[in-house]
Amino acid sequence: MPASRVINFGPGPSALPQSVLEKATQGLLNFNETGIGIAEISHRSKEFVAFLSNIESLIRTQLDVPSTHSILFTQGGGTGQFSAVVLNLLARHRLLYPELTADERVMDYILTGSWSEKAFQEAGRLGGARVNVALDARKYSKDGVSFDNVPPHGEYAFSPAPAFIYYCENETVDGVQFSADPSAQTSFPFARLPRERSGLLPLVGDHSSSFMSRPIPHLGEHAVIFAGAQKNLGPAGLTVLIVRHDCLVDVDAAAKLGAAPVPLSLSYKTLADSKSLYNTPSMLPIYITGLVLERMQELGGLTYFEALNKKKAEKVYAAIRSGEERGVFQGKVQDGSGSWMNVVFNVLGDGAESRFLTGAEEAGMKGLKGHRSVGGIRVSLYNAITESDTDKLVGYMKNFVSEAGAQAFGVKFSC
Amino acid sequence: MPASRVINFGPGPSALPQSVLEKATQGLLNFNETGIGIAEISHRSKEFVAFLSNIESLIRTQLDVPSTHSILFTQGGGTGQFSAVVLNLLARHRLLYPELTADERVMDYILTGSWSEKAFQEAGRLGGARVNVALDARKYSKDGVSFDNVPPHGEYAFSPAPAFIYYCENETVDGVQFSADPSAQTSFPFARLPRERSGLLPLVGDHSSSFMSRPIPHLGEHAVIFAGAQKNLGPAGLTVLIVRHDCLVDVDAAAKLGAAPVPLSLSYKTLADSKSLYNTPSMLPIYITGLVLERMQELGGLTYFEALNKKKAEKVYAAIRSGEERGVFQGKVQDGSGSWMNVVFNVLGDGAESRFLTGAEEAGMKGLKGHRSVGGIRVSLYNAITESDTDKLVGYMKNFVSEAGAQAFGVKFSC
Repeated sequence: MPASRVINFGPGPSALPQSVLEKATQGLLNFNETGIGIAEISHRSKEFVAFLSNIESLIRTQLDVPSTHSILFTQGGGTGQFSAVVLNLLARHRLLYPELTADERVMDYILTGSWSEKAFQEAGRLGGARVNVALDARKYSKDGVSFDNVPPHGEYAFSPAPAFIYYCENETVDGVQFSADPSAQTSFPFARLPRERSGLLPLVGDHSSSFMSRPIPHLGEHAVIFAGAQKNLGPAGLTVLIVRHDCLVDVDAAAKLGAAPVPLSLSYKTLADSKSLYNTPSMLPIYITGLVLERMQELGGLTYFEALNKKKAEKVYAAIRSGEERGVFQGKVQDGSGSWMNVVFNVLGDGAESRFLTGAEEAGMKGLKGHRSVGGIRVSLYNAITESDTDKLVGYMKNFVSEAGAQAFGVKFSC
Repeated sequence: MPASRVINFGPGPSALPQSVLEKATQGLLNFNETGIGIAEISHRSKEFVAFLSNIESLIRTQLDVPSTHSILFTQGGGTGQFSAVVLNLLARHRLLYPELTADERVMDYILTGSWSEKAFQEAGRLGGARVNVALDARKYSKDGVSFDNVPPHGEYAFSPAPAFIYYCENETVDGVQFSADPSAQTSFPFARLPRERSGLLPLVGDHSSSFMSRPIPHLGEHAVIFAGAQKNLGPAGLTVLIVRHDCLVDVDAAAKLGAAPVPLSLSYKTLADSKSLYNTPSMLPIYITGLVLERMQELGGLTYFEALNKKKAEKVYAAIRSGEERGVFQGKVQDGSGSWMNVVFNVLGDGAESRFLTGAEEAGMKGLKGHRSVGGIRVSLYNAITESDTDKLVGYMKNFVSEAGAQAFGVKFSC
């Protein structure tokens, strides 16, 4: 038996429940009593088709996805969807409003962190419509350049009739997330969004890093929600899409009207028409995702995880505040904008950050180094991180603060 | 312990070596002594980066990939590449020959089966250049409509200076493959291909279903070779690319000259510049692929598998011929065009095919049903199928022929 498992606070790929991994080892050799492993069986076998259909139900039930939306499974991660949403939703808009010029067709982006910014850049690369920044949260930051907040509702400047509005629900690099409390000014401004003549919202949400960690507000009003699996849900290699039926458009018909051709592997309608089996899907990641979802259901679904995740985050934020009072830690995100999934802070003092990381690793806690673009510490608290894992980290943080305080005290006296 | 494993003759996803799967169960819980499972660890961890680099070496060494070519790892399968090759190679061609009109820019497709036909259709969908059918093997078929052969070298009608030439090395649905014997008329017509002014060949090969089963002739002359992993190499969810460096082009510069914008996840240069880590790759399929490649190396690499695969195919084709002599089987592919990987035949007589399949399944052999579009029997003989697995099937085929012969004899006498 290899060395024992550590606690993995990494930002994704991230921790999975050990019980799920143990069950998965059986499926690798023999999937659901077929005598064939999950990595070897046909994606068109009745056993796999049934398994995939069950995953769809597990997501639909737990997340309360209405029958107006399809749940689809694809590959390519968030990066693939940065392009796919642009191509599919501009094709839809072309079919609805063929008369508009490229300048009259607008994509609204809400920038609250690195990932929404990357998506925004991809929209600019692909062209076909004008890109409007409906909000740039950096303008409201403490230092004027960082993503450290969700600005208040009044600051959004939406286009009157955008082809779509894009946001990223949780920013893993910057530790910024829209508030779960709809009355907070840092919640998502659903009431202010411009609607289409039909009354529909052309709203696209990247929920990669918060998917299945808590309910999604106004889910049924979204045009598209997408999520890479490798945070709360399963291994990398699977992307889940929730697409409102009016967004499953004939991209070839749109191309005839002048929209950009859509690579077949990125067409939502192709995926939906084939029930996510147009070509061979990423079956092993799908399998493990299925096991995770079954376990979630057994534990009490999103109600359970929402309460758990809230509690975990509160404990870590409290430990940061205690460290701030002693001048040891410094939170990086403004009040009300802090993520439940990725909690970021700095450790103050020369070499202190490195000491914090080394000590954590020695205590069996890995993955705490902040993203290379922003530095600092990042604690990722996805579903598979237990309350006891969190307590262990919080205990370590408290000890670190006490020791740093004692040292500072000692130093002061020796001068 | 679940029911014992059966022999999986499926066309892909397909059999993997049991020893690899057993090893993989360890990595699921603890990857290379990190204390973190392979589905959970960061793709930027030094352990994973080293593992990926080793996979690259294992492919480069065994397949003899020259230093002029990059080996890249992506998602999306062959279907993703049907689009990606068109977008990247038309971008390249635009940079080389910006003055050409869409009608002067030509993509040459060689159609020898269902998969090359699908790729051809995608090229037509994406547009940006004219599509020329350099060869349609159906014209040379026994029935005039099926893909059952590779036509002789003299039948290809290439464009004088195509942007690229596309072929599929092995057709899984139709059981057609280019001959491994370069002197055979059913080999790939390398000597007849039109070269660019530079002397380079703009040649694209879909090697999905024969990759790593035997050496690739003229590999170094290819512009792009791609392969989904889920045949000889590993689980679905990983696509391997071998790209000549002149095909890693700045797609944004090409777009400025009028080429179609390329979704970032499909850009070869983006993938190469990031060493296949632009975004989170499909790590679990990559891991198992690495274990398969290590095992291949231990067993003697492609020399070993070429000899083994040739022998396995010869045994099955011999069994079909024996059955043909007794009027029980009927081979579907013309002489010299039969695939080593997917051997297809019909079982003659009312209900006989269904009897053949049921009997095989009762004897612990699954996955033998032909593709739904063509019917019949398909025996897939990928690397993980052992000679003893093959012998078991051949024994079953011989028995089936004997019993069918005896029944026919009995029926004749009872009339």
